[in-house]
Amino acid sequence: MSVKMEIVSVGNELLIGKTLNTNAQFLAKRATTMGVIVDRITVVSDDVNEIAGAIRESLKRHPRFIITTGGLGPTFDDKTLQGIAKSLKRKLEANDEALQMVRGKYQTLLMEGRIEKVELTPSRVKMATFPRDTKPLHNPVGTAPGMVACVDGTFLIALPGVPPEMEAIFEGSIVPLLKKEAGKSAFFEASIYVNGIMESSLAPLIDKVMHDNPRVYIKSHVYTKSHPQTEGRRSHIELHFSTRAEDSKIAGDQLSKAIVHLSELVRNGGGRISRRAEGL
Amino acid sequence: MSVKMEIVSVGNELLIGKTLNTNAQFLAKRATTMGVIVDRITVVSDDVNEIAGAIRESLKRHPRFIITTGGLGPTFDDKTLQGIAKSLKRKLEANDEALQMVRGKYQTLLMEGRIEKVELTPSRVKMATFPRDTKPLHNPVGTAPGMVACVDGTFLIALPGVPPEMEAIFEGSIVPLLKKEAGKSAFFEASIYVNGIMESSLAPLIDKVMHDNPRVYIKSHVYTKSHPQTEGRRSHIELHFSTRAEDSKIAGDQLSKAIVHLSELVRNGGGRISRRAEGL
Repeated sequence: MSVKMEIVSVGNELLIGKTLNTNAQFLAKRATTMGVIVDRITVVSDDVNEIAGAIRESLKRHPRFIITTGGLGPTFDDKTLQGIAKSLKRKLEANDEALQMVRGKYQTLLMEGRIEKVELTPSRVKMATFPRDTKPLHNPVGTAPGMVACVDGTFLIALPGVPPEMEAIFEGSIVPLLKKEAGKSAFFEASIYVNGIMESSLAPLIDKVMHDNPRVYIKSHVYTKSHPQTEGRRSHIELHFSTRAEDSKIAGDQLSKAIVHLSELVRNGGGRISRRAEGL
Repeated sequence: MSVKMEIVSVGNELLIGKTLNTNAQFLAKRATTMGVIVDRITVVSDDVNEIAGAIRESLKRHPRFIITTGGLGPTFDDKTLQGIAKSLKRKLEANDEALQMVRGKYQTLLMEGRIEKVELTPSRVKMATFPRDTKPLHNPVGTAPGMVACVDGTFLIALPGVPPEMEAIFEGSIVPLLKKEAGKSAFFEASIYVNGIMESSLAPLIDKVMHDNPRVYIKSHVYTKSHPQTEGRRSHIELHFSTRAEDSKIAGDQLSKAIVHLSELVRNGGGRISRRAEGL
């Protein structure tokens, strides 16, 4: 059984091109490596209706996991918990366990002499104001807790947008859950690099190998060096092989067979193959 | 009138975390700078139904522009034109103008002595097989043409995934269209950097300035240095100001006023302000 995941990235900074979505790449890579299939990434603005809409649409597709990033902080523009509450039609309320976590952070700061008193201002209480029937996730790095809810067979998880905080909660609280769900499912990938043959001439060879190895996915990526060059100018092509299987042994065997097969066809077609990218 | 855009990024490599979505960032940044509002970025796999579904959902929200990236090449896994045809319920057929463009590329290669004959193999014809009633866009860098269609007031545009090809078609064929649509609309942004005050203490100050300057959006970003640090550890906070207006003068004035206002509140609250990021 394949375990599916969607990522919902929240943040205006992603939609104005200020910030590269490295959080989505991190989550996609880690989840894929554990055998989970990431089906979709959606980026929306810091707007309650946009967030709620994206989560509702995602829930309708019934992935096992939805992970949101961003919008959990103390400021006005942090609206993910409001968006989740709206999408689930649940009330927002101060969550005792989350309040305890937030208070604990400021108590530590007090003990370290960094602040003069522990004051749960409205901005701080906001970080612990959760949709009803959800649970906070311990944030070992920052202040805002993460959140998890179970909704009709989907784990809906909210992580902060600050990368070290997002990664710490993911590794601490989410990875064990993903591993348990994915079981022995394995994802294997490898690349070979081809020179001296055009992508359009490679295409029928790739098609043949994918036909004969239906569980292996092969994707070609054309790379250009410092300046643009047309396809014919001996462009550098990466052939990326990936496969999923119920365990590592099967996945590894599937992958090797396809790589050997395509390498032979490429050499017969006049192409040169290397295991590393040349001159990039 | 605000001109809205959505981006649909197609590619398994984005969903397995192999590739960072720099194409979406490039398009979002360029479009935003021209006064266009990017509302949503959706990443889907190289699957006809996934592509068609994402485009159908996007069309329902009636943005003025939808730009897809990826999936226009000669190989089996390049499925964006099929996905678009499915979403629009239009037949795929060889597009004469696109065929001419593809043939022209191989004729150039022939003249340069890089290939021995011009052969329009099925893989090459595939790059010119377009949904009915769409137009190809000249690709000055690579072989696969882009595509544009008009659908109920939306420009649906398909660009290749290879960054230099995507950028070249965008700059050559799409920028003039965006500029015409956006008119004098302006987007302005600037950042100041704050030390010595916690994000949760900044929050009410930001709220006040946003309330008094309703057209200016302020977003705080917490940065950490080489190792994670909690909010209280004098973390480095960027305050990013952005605004849109009907022309540059108004946008600039709006932005300056908000920056001056918030800077004053932050200094009164004990924070230090710089115009550049310190020690990052």
